[in-house]
Amino acid sequence: MHPFELTILGSSSATPASNRNPTAQLLNVDGRFFLIDCGEGTQMQLRRYKIKFQRIDHILISHLHGDHYLGLVGLLQSMHLLGREKELHLYCPKELKEIIDIQNKYSATKLTYSIIYHFTNGETSELLFEDNKLTIHTIILNHRIPCTGFIFREKPGDRKISIEKLEQYEVSIAEIHKLKKGLNGLDNHGKEISNELLTSPPPPTRSYAYCSETCYFEEIIDQIKEVDLLYHEATFLNNMLERAKMTFHSTALQAATIAKKAEVKRLLLGHFSARYPDLDGHLAEAREIFNNTLLAIEGEKISI
Amino acid sequence: MHPFELTILGSSSATPASNRNPTAQLLNVDGRFFLIDCGEGTQMQLRRYKIKFQRIDHILISHLHGDHYLGLVGLLQSMHLLGREKELHLYCPKELKEIIDIQNKYSATKLTYSIIYHFTNGETSELLFEDNKLTIHTIILNHRIPCTGFIFREKPGDRKISIEKLEQYEVSIAEIHKLKKGLNGLDNHGKEISNELLTSPPPPTRSYAYCSETCYFEEIIDQIKEVDLLYHEATFLNNMLERAKMTFHSTALQAATIAKKAEVKRLLLGHFSARYPDLDGHLAEAREIFNNTLLAIEGEKISI
Repeated sequence: MHPFELTILGSSSATPASNRNPTAQLLNVDGRFFLIDCGEGTQMQLRRYKIKFQRIDHILISHLHGDHYLGLVGLLQSMHLLGREKELHLYCPKELKEIIDIQNKYSATKLTYSIIYHFTNGETSELLFEDNKLTIHTIILNHRIPCTGFIFREKPGDRKISIEKLEQYEVSIAEIHKLKKGLNGLDNHGKEISNELLTSPPPPTRSYAYCSETCYFEEIIDQIKEVDLLYHEATFLNNMLERAKMTFHSTALQAATIAKKAEVKRLLLGHFSARYPDLDGHLAEAREIFNNTLLAIEGEKISI
Repeated sequence: MHPFELTILGSSSATPASNRNPTAQLLNVDGRFFLIDCGEGTQMQLRRYKIKFQRIDHILISHLHGDHYLGLVGLLQSMHLLGREKELHLYCPKELKEIIDIQNKYSATKLTYSIIYHFTNGETSELLFEDNKLTIHTIILNHRIPCTGFIFREKPGDRKISIEKLEQYEVSIAEIHKLKKGLNGLDNHGKEISNELLTSPPPPTRSYAYCSETCYFEEIIDQIKEVDLLYHEATFLNNMLERAKMTFHSTALQAATIAKKAEVKRLLLGHFSARYPDLDGHLAEAREIFNNTLLAIEGEKISI
């Protein structure tokens, strides 16, 4: 199977912790690199983990709190200084364009490449991206300002052809394009042969849901049902539930409750408050409810 | 003598090097902390070197290239999240206010403290700050966009009183306020005693000139004459002189030439291009012209 792999670049909430950077993740879907949020210092983190800036063609920004986008202008300007020519696709609230434009204007920066903007709306889920292998939809979250998560879903691949079966049923190699798509084939005598006799199903499709900042919000459950990996913010432990509610954040227990109700395969916690130097409490609290829980640790890769 | 000490927080030019951060320095003048430029990641660097954000009451931004200010909005928002109430003084080109305001607006951030803006002009040197101990003036540099350096000069301290001499000349302790300021005193019989007989000179005043980004520009020499420490950018080595000219930067050799002509005491080089993993070449090239040269290395403190 081709890679569907997440790299954690930052997992801190708004005030930086000395050993954690603000939010950023990189999703590699078969060699296409999607940068998801871009907190301050993301370009240094990309350097640290030896990820080439110019391989990133798509950047998604969930919302306009600084810890999720303040590294973007620096990264865009570095891509420019390094001579990028390829278009860059930027999926974000429309106000971000204004923030980028004003800074390029005052630094007299005329980018060497084009940014193609795809503005998100904070109100209804929409299809952001689609190609032959993948779709990305927004997830409407519930935070202090409009905030969207993102759900990445692989499309089903081609059915697998059995060369032995083609020989057995005397089906020509010329038929395989149809067969891969699930259509029936013709044998060398013109007789129709059922697809199921000649092929096996494609590998299962994979999915990743990214819920950057939100209070406990059951309305997302239907959309993230049974995803392979759910990233859900867990800024606080549950003994700070009131603070979580007040600031529209979640606790580790709440994230795990969402994971359980959505019957996801694995849960990834992140966006940890700087007050927690050690994250064992988050892991233990979540695993009480949902055992298959991981922590977002910088530099770690998670294969989905 | 009270501290007059510089801490290097970043010394990279615009594209980040994996082991260097973009420009930022902290100057401690007797417990007052001046942050000079604030490249991306400065707040993480402050954390790394255990410098408390809230001790910084003055931030100076030389110009609006991203590598000199992109860490500012994050730092301002962190000061807010940490509950700052004290006023913060910001010395910068006027356009920076627009850049800050728009980002606070779209993140719905109403700062818990006031920013007092002091706008620099890129055309004439001006007094930016003055109190009982220090003045700061701008230095007009020559870069692609308006860019000011900063020169910090201590004011002369009080003359030192000799208690023995007061006794010898029968001068009352009530006279010391006048004597510290250099005025003559009266003895217990009403006779005037010359200040020089009762006091010794104050410690020498110290000065620091910060020249963030500039091409070779002799017009600054008069203003920085004989400073104790000159920071001068040295983006390139002199075999890239043409590139330096084209981009309005300096070479190590040019920085050293300015230091020599200005007869400064020490030269500090910084703003190194990411193309130089090792900086021995900069040091050697500068020392050929001006021996008392140092490199800006992150985390190092330089006592002035």
